[in-house]
Amino acid sequence: MKYEFSARAHTLVSSPQLSIRTQTRRGTLISLAEELPAEELFPLSLLAEAASTVITADAGALQYGDPEGYAPLREWLTGDWLKGKGVNTAEGGVLLTTGSQQAIDLLSRVYIDPGDRVLVENPTSPGILQALRMQGAVIIPVQGDRNGLLPDHLRAQIHQHRPKMLFATPSYTNPSGILWSLERRKEVLELCTAHNLLIVEDDSYGDLHFKRAGGSSAVANYPSLYALENVSKGGHVLYIGSFSKTVAPALRTGWAAGSRELISMMAAAKQMADWQSSSLNQRLLHYLLDVTAFNLREHIAVLNREYSTRLKLMTELLKRPAWKNSEYDLPEGGMFLWVSLPEGLDAMLLLKAALAKGVAFLPGQLCSVNGGGNRIRLNFSHPGRDELLLGMNLMSEAVTDFTARS
Amino acid sequence: MKYEFSARAHTLVSSPQLSIRTQTRRGTLISLAEELPAEELFPLSLLAEAASTVITADAGALQYGDPEGYAPLREWLTGDWLKGKGVNTAEGGVLLTTGSQQAIDLLSRVYIDPGDRVLVENPTSPGILQALRMQGAVIIPVQGDRNGLLPDHLRAQIHQHRPKMLFATPSYTNPSGILWSLERRKEVLELCTAHNLLIVEDDSYGDLHFKRAGGSSAVANYPSLYALENVSKGGHVLYIGSFSKTVAPALRTGWAAGSRELISMMAAAKQMADWQSSSLNQRLLHYLLDVTAFNLREHIAVLNREYSTRLKLMTELLKRPAWKNSEYDLPEGGMFLWVSLPEGLDAMLLLKAALAKGVAFLPGQLCSVNGGGNRIRLNFSHPGRDELLLGMNLMSEAVTDFTARS
Repeated sequence: MKYEFSARAHTLVSSPQLSIRTQTRRGTLISLAEELPAEELFPLSLLAEAASTVITADAGALQYGDPEGYAPLREWLTGDWLKGKGVNTAEGGVLLTTGSQQAIDLLSRVYIDPGDRVLVENPTSPGILQALRMQGAVIIPVQGDRNGLLPDHLRAQIHQHRPKMLFATPSYTNPSGILWSLERRKEVLELCTAHNLLIVEDDSYGDLHFKRAGGSSAVANYPSLYALENVSKGGHVLYIGSFSKTVAPALRTGWAAGSRELISMMAAAKQMADWQSSSLNQRLLHYLLDVTAFNLREHIAVLNREYSTRLKLMTELLKRPAWKNSEYDLPEGGMFLWVSLPEGLDAMLLLKAALAKGVAFLPGQLCSVNGGGNRIRLNFSHPGRDELLLGMNLMSEAVTDFTARS
Repeated sequence: MKYEFSARAHTLVSSPQLSIRTQTRRGTLISLAEELPAEELFPLSLLAEAASTVITADAGALQYGDPEGYAPLREWLTGDWLKGKGVNTAEGGVLLTTGSQQAIDLLSRVYIDPGDRVLVENPTSPGILQALRMQGAVIIPVQGDRNGLLPDHLRAQIHQHRPKMLFATPSYTNPSGILWSLERRKEVLELCTAHNLLIVEDDSYGDLHFKRAGGSSAVANYPSLYALENVSKGGHVLYIGSFSKTVAPALRTGWAAGSRELISMMAAAKQMADWQSSSLNQRLLHYLLDVTAFNLREHIAVLNREYSTRLKLMTELLKRPAWKNSEYDLPEGGMFLWVSLPEGLDAMLLLKAALAKGVAFLPGQLCSVNGGGNRIRLNFSHPGRDELLLGMNLMSEAVTDFTARS
């Protein structure tokens, strides 16, 4: 039959990501394109123990659960974990979701009408842009520098566009890896509060941070916007996070924390969208975190040591001649290098050449409201060291093929 | 802050279901309101074995997977399972979802614009109505009888409203438990095909069917609309199913099968909505179904024997004096009795009284496009026999309190 898709379904047309993922699965590609953690470091045996104990202990583990998510995991999250980050959560102020992406999508559905203006960092994550486009938002970029969003530009955009909200990733923005300074955090929060803007703060990468070059200790992260706001009075920040980067993605467990009013509305949307995420997975996570010997802080420290090494390897490989007119800022956390290509080299054309050689990366266009054509995002967390070396060799060849020609 | 929710977020205002669920979890209620399978019958030990094997065998089980879902489970589904139901699936024509509800929601998002007219059976499931309202559809009821939708009324509604699609549950409609006759199936399919209507066929309950009263063998189900259509030429039916009712809900695994074009669009929407459902859960299911001694057909036969007994118990209890002016049609499958209350007794008022006594049911209003106020939906699959007895006693008391007064 001839289908009549909805007006905005065309915003979904299958992205390069989808086909890169498929080719990677088939084992025909080395992918520097994705947002995957290193699977060698998953706590497999403890999770296997958790699974077999949780399933045999209580048939309720396989029954439908609460739309808001498994209560003991929500308690662990708000008690043990978020309090340690200076975050106080309101009673009924947490919703467990299918990864952080679902939190972004649910919030968009309950808060955005077509034509509503929404501010975003530029560049920002492809997932945020996709959800906003599907909801029909008018997406307005705000400029930033190495210290975060520029308050003057934010103020100007607020006055010009009267936006309803801001999506921000103050700690290790995907893709650029920027860490907002404390001062910028305070300024942005103050501006948004004064103009009744809701801030959606994605902190999915906030725990992944490395030693400063030459420094002796890991970078101390700054408080989240959510922590900076006085929760009891505010409600201007919806704080989003995930266990996908710190424990394992296949558990599909992320969260949103915010005011009770906002979280209730998102929980109602979640019930409509899929009733609930897997309470089995949430119970496995809770068992892992609360009962077994697993220590999430120590585990994250292990991840960060390894990711730091892989980042260093990648930056070494970027010293090769092929990259001599490329530039990047060294990130202090996250999973990505955000590289600007030599002038005249388009990321989409380079992708075609790279795929032909057997390596993939994410073209900057997918992270950008407008343009971004000479930027690429390289992931250093997933590929093992050998794979990283091979992948970067192929990337260098692809770049050289272009630059040699011009 | 003062939130400005989107225009249709108010359609989500928390349903009685949500608060019933919460009270049931606290152990303060017997619930005849929900759509839960009997947890005593979950294949716990085989699933525990599956979990510990799957997790230790391959770290990939905890990594991100494909947006379309774990390929071997899709193959099992289309090969072993759907072929046995006379269903041929196109290559690339299956998407795994977070339960059947997500399949309904995703399809609604890619196919319905606000103001689009959508036909539904009336009564129909609360989940379908919620998803359609959130999408801004104009919902148009089609009348039916014990044999399914009435073709004359369907034709009249098509001509009057020019709808885009039809949502239907031909096998054991939630809530009414109706099984469409083969003739009606063919007539409805023909009418929809002739007018280019997309049919969304929810077959989540199709496997749950019982012996006819006095009959010696289980009711043979009829072919689905999807099976009746020639897949290679058609594409008018999107076929939705789930493992929630037949294996375990917490695995949150449902599916949609249809033309490659339709499924690709839904897969792109799924990627935007939550990247993917839990591939860990999908691998557990696949291991259970394909590797262990578990036999899904035999397991469903066990469920059906027990549910049939529970249904019989419930109908016995409905012979008590309190229910003398109530009516229902005996269903041959599904999980529900759809009971009309004595005249003048409103389901919402009865719910309040029943909750005070410690028992819950689903008021008919939640299943109805318009009205439904003197109907209630009673679930017989989840409560054990003792619980069912106690719950129905409390229900009888609540009804008596009302009818004695009038």
